[in-house]
Amino acid sequence: MSVTAPQGFRAAGVVAGLKSSGERDVAVVINDGPSRAAAAVFTSNRVQAAPVKWSRQVVSGGRVRAVVLNSGGANACTGPLGFQDTHATAEKLAAALDDSAGEIVVCSTGLIGERLPMDKLLPAVDAAVAEADRAGGVHAADAIRTTDTVVKIAFRRQDSAQPGGQPPQKTTYTLGGMAKGAGMLAPALATMLVVITTDADLDAAELDKALRSATAVTFDRLDADGCMSTNDTVLLMASGASGVKPDYKDFTRALTEVCADLARQLQRDAEGASKYVTIEVVGAASETDAVTVGKSVARNNLLKCALAGSDPNWGRVLSAVGTTDAVFDPDRLNVAMNGVWVCRAGAPGDDRSKVDLKGKDVTITVDLSAGPHSAIILTTDLTEAYVHENSAYST
Amino acid sequence: MSVTAPQGFRAAGVVAGLKSSGERDVAVVINDGPSRAAAAVFTSNRVQAAPVKWSRQVVSGGRVRAVVLNSGGANACTGPLGFQDTHATAEKLAAALDDSAGEIVVCSTGLIGERLPMDKLLPAVDAAVAEADRAGGVHAADAIRTTDTVVKIAFRRQDSAQPGGQPPQKTTYTLGGMAKGAGMLAPALATMLVVITTDADLDAAELDKALRSATAVTFDRLDADGCMSTNDTVLLMASGASGVKPDYKDFTRALTEVCADLARQLQRDAEGASKYVTIEVVGAASETDAVTVGKSVARNNLLKCALAGSDPNWGRVLSAVGTTDAVFDPDRLNVAMNGVWVCRAGAPGDDRSKVDLKGKDVTITVDLSAGPHSAIILTTDLTEAYVHENSAYST
Repeated sequence: MSVTAPQGFRAAGVVAGLKSSGERDVAVVINDGPSRAAAAVFTSNRVQAAPVKWSRQVVSGGRVRAVVLNSGGANACTGPLGFQDTHATAEKLAAALDDSAGEIVVCSTGLIGERLPMDKLLPAVDAAVAEADRAGGVHAADAIRTTDTVVKIAFRRQDSAQPGGQPPQKTTYTLGGMAKGAGMLAPALATMLVVITTDADLDAAELDKALRSATAVTFDRLDADGCMSTNDTVLLMASGASGVKPDYKDFTRALTEVCADLARQLQRDAEGASKYVTIEVVGAASETDAVTVGKSVARNNLLKCALAGSDPNWGRVLSAVGTTDAVFDPDRLNVAMNGVWVCRAGAPGDDRSKVDLKGKDVTITVDLSAGPHSAIILTTDLTEAYVHENSAYST
Repeated sequence: MSVTAPQGFRAAGVVAGLKSSGERDVAVVINDGPSRAAAAVFTSNRVQAAPVKWSRQVVSGGRVRAVVLNSGGANACTGPLGFQDTHATAEKLAAALDDSAGEIVVCSTGLIGERLPMDKLLPAVDAAVAEADRAGGVHAADAIRTTDTVVKIAFRRQDSAQPGGQPPQKTTYTLGGMAKGAGMLAPALATMLVVITTDADLDAAELDKALRSATAVTFDRLDADGCMSTNDTVLLMASGASGVKPDYKDFTRALTEVCADLARQLQRDAEGASKYVTIEVVGAASETDAVTVGKSVARNNLLKCALAGSDPNWGRVLSAVGTTDAVFDPDRLNVAMNGVWVCRAGAPGDDRSKVDLKGKDVTITVDLSAGPHSAIILTTDLTEAYVHENSAYST
């Protein structure tokens, strides 16, 4: 399971002492090849953590030997000294693997604006390499948790269709993944660290294209609290150890399923969430319009509070739709909550008392009556527990 | 005080029974002239309540005889029948004043998506006209409250400088105002109803220009929860009863002060707020950049939760700044919380433990180091009380 499910990878999660809780806080995932092809997407926040700046350069080369990840500190807004810390961490892992720091990705998560305790972090890198093995995926996933209450891992075994006329040969490859992220979840990307591994054999350009395609319809459509992180990273590493060169479309489909699985796990563990809310936007003039409307609804604090109270206050959906520049006529908007069309043609439809929001899963459907396009955005409600959890994070 | 402070106006607030609490819920403000010049600004939400659609047409004529306002129902998303209700309300007030419905503004506030009980509303319009007098301003301000805990009124007496060489003459004029708004507060406009009256003598074009100038730097810079209403209206009515034709700049300055006063009152009564937060953005390349950055910070739920807990988590300020397209270099950003520069040049500055956020007033200063422009945005923290209050509004 997790990132060590595919052949060619080993991993570990160890205790460095960065977290005051004494839990695992440093992870490594090592690609033993034969391929080292890799791709990644990073936060679109213009304030970027040191590890993001470093890793962006590394991944631009298309080859990654290993990634080291830490919780207990984001190493963001830490200036030139923070960047030196990231560099030193990469050098440490490179030395332990007798390899080049130029192929080492670094990810950090935790509080912004504090230096990392390097005296604790660097020895832990050595310890993690010493422990790393084919069973270490779950420990690695555990080590990257911050306020995550559960470990988030995914796994998929795929039979690749071969082009016709070939003799029978190996056609099975595997994807594995781990993720962290519970607060500061907003698109492009949701705040999170994700590592996905595969033993399929694809080059860096194919991996990059597949990863951008997959994240655009999964992590980029998760919006728990509208807040965008400085550290978001989704890294995809391919060892090629299965010997299978899958069809690009087939691989992208499998990768998208792994990303969707992890995104759903992030949604279900979002800080303080008591409802898992799916915003379906249909009848849009374009997919962009559908996403814009879905995100506007997903970010409406008043609606999210109403959902926390199981209150079918659909006017708040319309007021959120109305703030967008999507194509629609206000008098042709339809809205359903859990299948009850409470708003038809911009006016009251079925009685709101028919809506049952008591369950944990809520679906809001917005029909823009403007075209054939659609999109789904995942979000959560806004609860007193969310406020409480985030009112004293740094102190 | 309130809207009846200037000469030429009478007002009342009465109980129609729209609110289940039995409190005042219908108000009228009547301009007895001699002038009827008026201007208004409305929500920029594309989903607009029936009274907004109606009143926009009325105000385009530049003359307003009276306004009728109700709480207990927004009359938004109510379709053609809701528009007929607004029309009937205007006709009722026009008949009581023996005047034309084409000069009657209508404002509504409350739950979206429900028809108003016209059998209760229409008789109350007559009752309000019968009661309206020069002392009715505070009752009118009381009648427009929804979740507002206090009445919000403002008053300013202004001595107008006369151009030189004139014989002494009347130079004093008065402005009065009332406002409601406690939730769904976001710019363009903050969710609210505001009526401002004056006995100065200006034409509709001057009033319009002055009102747009004043609201752009006051109500448009208040953002309590990022949610934009379907019903926002700021109406300015001039009776000309003082006989004073003030200098345009002088009048705009006085009007801006009245708007700023009411905006500050809205901030201090925002739903569930425990902190009154001023976001100062300085060093911006343009005023637009300063406003964009200020609003992004003001809408960051994670920061707002931290403020509720008196936690100086300044990394959340930077992560919000980083989501904007304003001109800045991340390595030149400076941030102060209550005067302590916790972030200098994008890296840790003074120790966060020096920041005292225990008081109710918090000032966050963001220095973009990119130019000479600045702006101030008013917001509040995000508390468990906000969530609680908004979790069961419609039920």
